[in-house]
Amino acid sequence: MDAREAAAEAPMDDVAALMETLGRRARAAAEQLATVPTAAKDAALRAAAAAVRARAAEILEANAADMQAARAKDLPPAMLDRLRLDGGRVDAIARGLEEVAALPDPVGSVTEEWTRPNGLRIQRVRVPLGVIGIIYESRPNVTADAGGLCLKSGNAAILRGGSESFHSSRAILAALQDGLRAAGLPPDAVQAVPTRDRAAVGALLGLTGLVDVVIPRGGKSLTARVAAESRVPVIYHLDGICHVYVDRAADVEKARAVVMNSKMRRTGICGAAETLLVDRTVLDSHLRPILADLLEAGCEIRGDAAVQALDPRVRPAAEEDWETEYLDAILSVKAVDGVDAAVEHIQRHGSHHTDSIVTKDAATAERFLSRVDSGIVLWNASTQFADGGEFGFGAEIGISTGKLHARGPVGAAQLTSYKYVVRGDGQIRP
Amino acid sequence: MDAREAAAEAPMDDVAALMETLGRRARAAAEQLATVPTAAKDAALRAAAAAVRARAAEILEANAADMQAARAKDLPPAMLDRLRLDGGRVDAIARGLEEVAALPDPVGSVTEEWTRPNGLRIQRVRVPLGVIGIIYESRPNVTADAGGLCLKSGNAAILRGGSESFHSSRAILAALQDGLRAAGLPPDAVQAVPTRDRAAVGALLGLTGLVDVVIPRGGKSLTARVAAESRVPVIYHLDGICHVYVDRAADVEKARAVVMNSKMRRTGICGAAETLLVDRTVLDSHLRPILADLLEAGCEIRGDAAVQALDPRVRPAAEEDWETEYLDAILSVKAVDGVDAAVEHIQRHGSHHTDSIVTKDAATAERFLSRVDSGIVLWNASTQFADGGEFGFGAEIGISTGKLHARGPVGAAQLTSYKYVVRGDGQIRP
Repeated sequence: MDAREAAAEAPMDDVAALMETLGRRARAAAEQLATVPTAAKDAALRAAAAAVRARAAEILEANAADMQAARAKDLPPAMLDRLRLDGGRVDAIARGLEEVAALPDPVGSVTEEWTRPNGLRIQRVRVPLGVIGIIYESRPNVTADAGGLCLKSGNAAILRGGSESFHSSRAILAALQDGLRAAGLPPDAVQAVPTRDRAAVGALLGLTGLVDVVIPRGGKSLTARVAAESRVPVIYHLDGICHVYVDRAADVEKARAVVMNSKMRRTGICGAAETLLVDRTVLDSHLRPILADLLEAGCEIRGDAAVQALDPRVRPAAEEDWETEYLDAILSVKAVDGVDAAVEHIQRHGSHHTDSIVTKDAATAERFLSRVDSGIVLWNASTQFADGGEFGFGAEIGISTGKLHARGPVGAAQLTSYKYVVRGDGQIRP
Repeated sequence: MDAREAAAEAPMDDVAALMETLGRRARAAAEQLATVPTAAKDAALRAAAAAVRARAAEILEANAADMQAARAKDLPPAMLDRLRLDGGRVDAIARGLEEVAALPDPVGSVTEEWTRPNGLRIQRVRVPLGVIGIIYESRPNVTADAGGLCLKSGNAAILRGGSESFHSSRAILAALQDGLRAAGLPPDAVQAVPTRDRAAVGALLGLTGLVDVVIPRGGKSLTARVAAESRVPVIYHLDGICHVYVDRAADVEKARAVVMNSKMRRTGICGAAETLLVDRTVLDSHLRPILADLLEAGCEIRGDAAVQALDPRVRPAAEEDWETEYLDAILSVKAVDGVDAAVEHIQRHGSHHTDSIVTKDAATAERFLSRVDSGIVLWNASTQFADGGEFGFGAEIGISTGKLHARGPVGAAQLTSYKYVVRGDGQIRP
């Protein structure tokens, strides 16, 4: 362990005081950011992108230190891959910041407008939330993605990355702060927690009044801890148990394409399907070819008795399979008695994330779309469209499965609140 | 203490289990409510209004029992008045339910709609939040107002009224549940906590997963307790430290009218002004007549040195006066150096509720409107317009000073979340 590593590992004397200082600085920066023109924020984002490219060697050196420490800890290959940066990935970080600069600024946009009988003109106008805490795991690029999106939406950010990516994240942060300075904005607009001490997370989650919302980005255990501990409001998704329901009135070819894409396009994302429900009357005509496709593509199938009867390669599903987010080439498959049974299964076992129905019958589709209580419901489309980019939001910071404030993809607009601006001519209330 | 009173006072063996049962019933009712047609909800509201009228004698009898217990406890006259029902007030409760029935149903309305280049049609559709907990104090009418607004927006409600209004609230609840039954809706859509045991509040605040949001309606100590203890997300306002700023470019007559109305129309509401800021250059021309109006109307004035110099009846303001919600005929008054100093004072001492500027200068007004970080900002209008009815929302459940989810008046639309409904033709993600 080198000296820099040792300093980051050292427990802090007073983490609570440190975090409160970060919070106060963020609050002051947020007050400035709330009213800066779009051009200044975009200039900062573009200057940050340039600084990421200029500091590429430094970022890669910091990442090498993180990688060395991670290898010494025998971290699994998947985690090492998420942590690893190279020239291409550093350039992708810079391009991501430029893409955020090119997005429309949500702040100041008037989302509703009306005039009252007494002549008062009322506008509902988007304003930043204030200070956003982001708690994430090993991917160092989140530092730039999350910091950039917060800045675009006029919010100050306090970032707490995974301890494995500590040095990489700090090097990227330096580039972001270069960008802020170059545009004349307060560098405290994006800060990172300067210690790996785990007490910092607890302190961050208690900064009510200084931090307006916390967004965890990572695995279920991180999100569950944040949800359980936080005194600050949280926007999060716990997991993505996404379903495809193939109705008796489904077009077979569309069902095959949608199921294959929902499961196998990328298995590790939250919008990947984990459970397939098929109307019991079309197991032979619809499910049989779908199973053949999936098994051919290397997907493990865990099915109920009716599904097992179709193919000897289907393994038996246990009760917990209906509530497991595999994030892998595994699919649980169940025969159900029509759309209502499918909805009931999803309501009971789903995670309110993303669910899709394949059918030619419009009435059946509308029944599913209105009854399934998930952030995203689709008709004849892949669950893998659960993504801010695919919705046209540009960058996203995550997918919310909660119902308060933001639901579904969380982009720049979802990182704003609103105020009512009322213009009168001396009106008084009778 | 009669037998009914004694039963309500008895501590419960297992309040947590009781509250969880309430929560489960509410969740089941919410799942039904989410997709019932508008007509059924409106029929329930109208039938509830009829039941309130039919049960008027019973409601008044229950209220008499509450009043007797309250008098025995020597509650202050203002609290007794809030608690007291008579024929007129019972009829107003019924009319309130009919007015909520007549409001537009927010559920199912499409607030945004667009088509992606790949042909996917995306709609953002309002859906109910789910289960809403309402914690309030002595006014029994909140039982009907809050229960009715939750029902209108498709949410199940768990109501916890003040212990003083226990019997009155239960009698009103019986009428609401009559209405639900008459319309074929689950009576568990509106439930009340059946015990006065204070542990019930703590249990309600811990029902994550069963209760989606808690809304406290009452004084600062109630709201602060809820905010500090709740594991369930909270929509609340802590206090209304509302300001009027009279600019150097203000029309004197408009300033007089707006200040008088903001302070004195009703002093006990959260949108009443508590602090007046006046540009130092117009103390003589503008503040002098304003002070004369207020003093004549019986308002006590607490001012800084410059304000005290204008009139011997002005008392000295202490530091805490700038952060006190008097809810009474008292106004703190301060001379400031222009709009920026006014904004700074409001940012430092205000409560992000409602603030108004009086000026003829549009640029100054826009500076104030964009920089003051409050839910409602007004130009040349009384702060007493901070009200859902005055905004055209119909009934409101309160005014939120938080920034997450709802800000400003909270009406039926603010009690909803949204889902994305995506309609395709077999699209898969590349």
